[in-house]
Amino acid sequence: MTRVLLLHPGSMGSSLGSNLVENDHKVFWVAENRSEATEERAAQADLTRAGSLAEAITEVEVVLSVCPPENAIDVGRAVAKTEFLGTYCDANAIAPSTAQGLLDIYGERYVDGGIVGPPPRVHGHTRLYLSGSNAHQIAKLFQSTRVQTEVLVNGPLAASAMKMCYAAYTKGTAALILGIRALAEHYGVSKSLQAEWSQSENSLWDRSERIGPGTSPKAWRFAPEMREIAKTFNTAELPSGFHDAAAEIYSRMASLKHEEDVETTKVLQYLLVGSATDS
Amino acid sequence: MTRVLLLHPGSMGSSLGSNLVENDHKVFWVAENRSEATEERAAQADLTRAGSLAEAITEVEVVLSVCPPENAIDVGRAVAKTEFLGTYCDANAIAPSTAQGLLDIYGERYVDGGIVGPPPRVHGHTRLYLSGSNAHQIAKLFQSTRVQTEVLVNGPLAASAMKMCYAAYTKGTAALILGIRALAEHYGVSKSLQAEWSQSENSLWDRSERIGPGTSPKAWRFAPEMREIAKTFNTAELPSGFHDAAAEIYSRMASLKHEEDVETTKVLQYLLVGSATDS
Repeated sequence: MTRVLLLHPGSMGSSLGSNLVENDHKVFWVAENRSEATEERAAQADLTRAGSLAEAITEVEVVLSVCPPENAIDVGRAVAKTEFLGTYCDANAIAPSTAQGLLDIYGERYVDGGIVGPPPRVHGHTRLYLSGSNAHQIAKLFQSTRVQTEVLVNGPLAASAMKMCYAAYTKGTAALILGIRALAEHYGVSKSLQAEWSQSENSLWDRSERIGPGTSPKAWRFAPEMREIAKTFNTAELPSGFHDAAAEIYSRMASLKHEEDVETTKVLQYLLVGSATDS
Repeated sequence: MTRVLLLHPGSMGSSLGSNLVENDHKVFWVAENRSEATEERAAQADLTRAGSLAEAITEVEVVLSVCPPENAIDVGRAVAKTEFLGTYCDANAIAPSTAQGLLDIYGERYVDGGIVGPPPRVHGHTRLYLSGSNAHQIAKLFQSTRVQTEVLVNGPLAASAMKMCYAAYTKGTAALILGIRALAEHYGVSKSLQAEWSQSENSLWDRSERIGPGTSPKAWRFAPEMREIAKTFNTAELPSGFHDAAAEIYSRMASLKHEEDVETTKVLQYLLVGSATDS
């Protein structure tokens, strides 16, 4: 049994935490400054409440960070300021060059992670890529759970690189397709594009119709993830424009966060308001 | 029977010309400053040789421009300097705002075109989108040929808009996928990405393996086409980065023009040389 601090139980984090609890680990979370929704998710996942980071950190051997990419470094720094001496695993969608900042802080105690797939409620769809000296320690925590782990041996930051490559395609093409739908709408050729895509690009129009409703609630956090991917391309001296543009697409959708079943026509209105609304 | 001047018989142009000749139209081409390869293609398509533009232009009622996008405006201007009074059709992959320059020159005599699909050697795979007052005149030329025509009624430049939307996805995603393959190679995670894509992204790895050999001979002309698409997004105040990046990817591959069956590993070497080689 390992004592783990999970920062923070969002949709993905609480589901990972639930898998750890079912594996007989004790999983803490920090209630300070978190919402009621987080409290509910943590309770449903049978996580153990701690009032503050200082209180929680003395209890645990492992910290697992699952948060929006733009907060990953702040979370890592906050933990580093405590007396924590265990293993720090960041499982966020961040560029290897961002993760380098955490490796610099924690050294061999840092495990790099990257999650591919949905919150692990069923078997076979969610993989946690891990790299670094202690990667096997984290992999072991998830043994026999609904989270499949893959330890990468191509350097300490390989897990972040894998996550960036994977999301570069899935979320990059989703943004591109929405952008093209907006382009066709602007030029008044949506009906013709529907006919062409239906004829020559097998089911692409139908796919395009599902992207708006599927991504609208998550676009606010996809935008910073796209910027991490752009950074990853830049570091490799490859063009970053695909994901700069994807970040812009998702930025324009950010205010759709709390709306449900957003139709494509509405998403296109948000995309076509021009760069003035970019956050 | 209509007398048509085709500028110029490349792979696509000669195949379109061949369809027109089979439909009993007389199709001229201009030999001045063209290569031996063009001469051969024109001969095979049964096109009629003219020594110069001035000589050809007096013979025809229609000019059909099929050339790399960066030459479209020059070709249009050269024809405008002659005494030509017929219909000018540009079927090139250019932005509506580029095509506007031709509309300004030719007015109602301008027909906007956009070709989707391969050179029309068989039925059912190639569509010629047309827009503008005289669009039906061009459509009629191709009646009962292997070129399917679609007349768009959403404004005089709708055909170019359609072509941009279509190529934005096909050539945009191809460039993105090559970029991601290069990214994975840079970070040493190609094998892991192959496993992940094979598991969760149905046949994406196999598709990625075909893109390099398929696009290498054409990348030199895809680059300016991507810049036209970027311009199309810009005009609509949508982010242009996807296709700025795609242009960069294809630019780095431009010197592979004359190589056959280029393997992915070689393409990735060209992509990973960094921005220093960008043309």
